Amino acid sequence: MRELAGHLELCSINTATLGYQLPVGETIEAIARRGFGALSLWRREVEGEDVAAIARHISDSGLQVASYCRSSYIPALTAEQFEAAHSDNCRALDTAAKLGAGCFVMVVGSLPTGSQDLGRARIQVAEGVTHLLWHAKAVGVRLALEPLHPMYAADRSCLNTLEQALDIADMIEGNVEDPWLGVALDAYHVWWDPKLPEQTARAGRARRIFAHHVSDWLVPTTDFLNDRGMMGDGVIDLKAIRAMVEAASYSGMVEVEIFSAANWWKRPVEDTLAVCAQRLQRDC
Amino acid sequence: MRELAGHLELCSINTATLGYQLPVGETIEAIARRGFGALSLWRREVEGEDVAAIARHISDSGLQVASYCRSSYIPALTAEQFEAAHSDNCRALDTAAKLGAGCFVMVVGSLPTGSQDLGRARIQVAEGVTHLLWHAKAVGVRLALEPLHPMYAADRSCLNTLEQALDIADMIEGNVEDPWLGVALDAYHVWWDPKLPEQTARAGRARRIFAHHVSDWLVPTTDFLNDRGMMGDGVIDLKAIRAMVEAASYSGMVEVEIFSAANWWKRPVEDTLAVCAQRLQRDC
Repeated sequence: MRELAGHLELCSINTATLGYQLPVGETIEAIARRGFGALSLWRREVEGEDVAAIARHISDSGLQVASYCRSSYIPALTAEQFEAAHSDNCRALDTAAKLGAGCFVMVVGSLPTGSQDLGRARIQVAEGVTHLLWHAKAVGVRLALEPLHPMYAADRSCLNTLEQALDIADMIEGNVEDPWLGVALDAYHVWWDPKLPEQTARAGRARRIFAHHVSDWLVPTTDFLNDRGMMGDGVIDLKAIRAMVEAASYSGMVEVEIFSAANWWKRPVEDTLAVCAQRLQRDC
Repeated sequence: MRELAGHLELCSINTATLGYQLPVGETIEAIARRGFGALSLWRREVEGEDVAAIARHISDSGLQVASYCRSSYIPALTAEQFEAAHSDNCRALDTAAKLGAGCFVMVVGSLPTGSQDLGRARIQVAEGVTHLLWHAKAVGVRLALEPLHPMYAADRSCLNTLEQALDIADMIEGNVEDPWLGVALDAYHVWWDPKLPEQTARAGRARRIFAHHVSDWLVPTTDFLNDRGMMGDGVIDLKAIRAMVEAASYSGMVEVEIFSAANWWKRPVEDTLAVCAQRLQRDC
């Protein structure tokens, strides 16, 4: 297990953590100034902007782009909607390539409005990812399937466990030396899973861990979407999970991703970054 | 798959659905009057009361007691706390026996305050259930482990999937003809699980399905604990799940259990029971 104390260059900030308070240029500079090694950007910060200039700014600041967030939802009621999401995701992959992103994070979606057919949504996801993987390889960006906590199974992701994500990746890509299809392993989404140790090891053997996110589960949690905790403020044993992930040969960034409308998003970006730096070195 | 239309005698009302608005005697009569075949009671309604009289009242009303809810949490920081919960659960089992309950529902608990050790909590649960099973057999009440939705993993249950519950049951009791240790399969807790079909079939082969609960997952859900929906108001394909459960040889009650502080608990008991009856026959 790597030592994070004194090694913020191993750590990344997902810009969602900062509540999109600043223009992307200022965000990049604030993250670089604090000594982090990377950031992950969201489409809302990049689309419609000069992508090459953003990429240059990031690179000139000495940062990497750990990942680009995130896919449009795949399951759809009609073939037109399904194709529209595919096209949208292809365009996002083109941008991810220009940014030099380590991977494109796939939040796959779930039940279209009015549907109760989770099985169909899951089949559509497998189909959509299979299709998208061609474009991902063509532009040189890896796809990271992100299993989301089961509390998001209705509306955000029908991929809800690491085992399920790996089953799909194995089915689509098979056993290859350098996979293009892997997983984003976010402690907030998977910490509860009794099969986490077994499946993390499996993911490592398949070289499919493309990202590792940290935040904390607060007790009580008061909002389904935007009440994640800062590392150390909740009940997740983040060190134990990172130990598993790194024992599974993961050597990428440890990335903070905190959705926190009532707390961290209201604080000055510099303060939040300072606390992230402290907690990454102490609690992760 | 059984026909529920015209067969409310196959259906049970978990009294939590009614928000504990009435004294237990009136609750019993209201449920019986509407034609349901059973009810499940909570300790808060029974403890300190004349249990034999309640049992007689239920039986005289033509109702069965599907289950008795629920266990005190097992994981503890000290041996004293662990033993106290065990004693508490033994007393509850004695009451369940007097009520003639079909099973005792085990909501097993999770992290004691201050702990991040989910693995230890899970081992304590296995130990506590092993211990309790002796008393359960002695008084003739089956134990139904209830896997709770992973959103409760921090504070209410470290049993979070059907597979995990069955693994523990197999480990403790082995492969027996008439198990005393089984599961309560609540659609609200397990509907999202990609392994639900496989694990439901497994549970059936082991004759371990002791209870089947229905309610619905609302989109959006606004409260972690008390915002369950009436069947038909959410996204769970309840018919598909009941088909699986009954294909797995379950022939017990279909039980409504809805925690709904802002909606159903505020309505008159008679109205809620009428809607339960309608939806059981139409949406389950």
